[in-house]
Amino acid sequence: MKIELASSYGFCFGVKRAIRIAEQNPNSKTFGPLIHNQDEINRLKSGYGVTYVDKMSEIEPNESVVVRTHGIPKEELKILKEQKNNIIDATCPYVTKPQNIVEEMSNQGYDIVIFGDKNHPEIRGVMSYAAKESNVYIVLDKNELEKEKLSNKIALVSQTTRKPDDFLQLANFLILCVKEVRVFNTICNATFENQDATQELAKRCDVMIVVGGKNSSNTKQLYLISKRYCDDSYLVENQDEVDLAWFKNKEHCGIAAGASTPDWIVEEIVDKVKAIC
Amino acid sequence: MKIELASSYGFCFGVKRAIRIAEQNPNSKTFGPLIHNQDEINRLKSGYGVTYVDKMSEIEPNESVVVRTHGIPKEELKILKEQKNNIIDATCPYVTKPQNIVEEMSNQGYDIVIFGDKNHPEIRGVMSYAAKESNVYIVLDKNELEKEKLSNKIALVSQTTRKPDDFLQLANFLILCVKEVRVFNTICNATFENQDATQELAKRCDVMIVVGGKNSSNTKQLYLISKRYCDDSYLVENQDEVDLAWFKNKEHCGIAAGASTPDWIVEEIVDKVKAIC
Repeated sequence: MKIELASSYGFCFGVKRAIRIAEQNPNSKTFGPLIHNQDEINRLKSGYGVTYVDKMSEIEPNESVVVRTHGIPKEELKILKEQKNNIIDATCPYVTKPQNIVEEMSNQGYDIVIFGDKNHPEIRGVMSYAAKESNVYIVLDKNELEKEKLSNKIALVSQTTRKPDDFLQLANFLILCVKEVRVFNTICNATFENQDATQELAKRCDVMIVVGGKNSSNTKQLYLISKRYCDDSYLVENQDEVDLAWFKNKEHCGIAAGASTPDWIVEEIVDKVKAIC
Repeated sequence: MKIELASSYGFCFGVKRAIRIAEQNPNSKTFGPLIHNQDEINRLKSGYGVTYVDKMSEIEPNESVVVRTHGIPKEELKILKEQKNNIIDATCPYVTKPQNIVEEMSNQGYDIVIFGDKNHPEIRGVMSYAAKESNVYIVLDKNELEKEKLSNKIALVSQTTRKPDDFLQLANFLILCVKEVRVFNTICNATFENQDATQELAKRCDVMIVVGGKNSSNTKQLYLISKRYCDDSYLVENQDEVDLAWFKNKEHCGIAAGASTPDWIVEEIVDKVKAIC
């Protein structure tokens, strides 16, 4: 039986890069989890001595600190510098970009609108780069701006994981309200790349395995896309759940994986399918 | 019977301003028609000696020249300056704005997208302000940009009379294509103000007169809006067409006027209605 991986699956570029950086810096600490996947965090701890702490107070001066993929607020970076920590920056370049834009635009006198969740670590980092003189609005819906007296010069950025259509709705509201809107499309299309690749593969396969957490909304989304094009689609968390019966009379098995699934879990599944078929 | 004018009707701010400027500069020439209304152009000619010419070659050195409401290209302004003409600028401030934006943004290295009709005098003026190094795209539909290799820094302006929804469609296309779109909403809402005022008035009246050219698309639009809210709505070009029969058993007559209708035509109609009712 032919086994084929989706052309894009699992961790995005930024997460893969952060893991590589962590592996290259054994025994360092990360401030907050490097990524949102407990298996992978355990692996980095047991294999590389990379641990994570939740509070700044748990970081000792001079220690090596890996800055997480989502980035950290400017003030926290300042403390690490003052403590003379060895700072290893694993912030995703797609997150560094809105941080830089917010800093530059607020210095140029623009008020800032961030399309995102104010409690998300990425956004707490991005907003921290605004100059004190600028108003910063962090919203998930244009309704939240309707009562605000907006300035006539607005710079707009987005949390990297938001949907483009929702971002446009907010942009449109602002374009009709104020004289100048400087729109920076900072959405990263990694999530959509996995979805597109899953759809393309599912169309060509007679059995599909989608790998990822059963509570992960992006994995469930991939599973639904797969199911739409390939009736025999299965959602599994690891190789133990793969069932020989699925492959009877099948010729082409596709494998896709959610954004929080490490490559090694996918590889174990490929090996299992190869072994039983 | 009560007679009430719409809270906004007839000429927009820019046209009223240009007419005032022409009246204050008798015996001047305008390069192209000052406005799109032949009655008014005739009135300025007979009352103030203000004539218009179609070609630059018809303007003699040192003459007084009124720059039309829609503006003129930068190169033509330069010739007038070189000829030492007395230049009286009646360009609508809402048109000067996109001219200035295009000049500044192209000097800053942005490519320019103008949402508008490349044959319209306003747009021929606006586009002329772009620096030679910038690409300038003048489009009425995003499809016209789909094959272009766009730069990652785009400034977007609109012809003043376009519909906001259409402008947003183009803005949305650009936001998803390029890294930064600097959106300047240069649409003037005068047309929409006349429409809103007509609707509001028609709801409260039992007879409505809409004044304007029967070939004018914006006047016909006003008439349709009026008719939707007031069954007894009539479209007239001048006071001769007003009919006594319309006002039988009526109590409240509303009067609206299209964007190319001079105030004096509206005033004649008010006088006629007062006289016959």
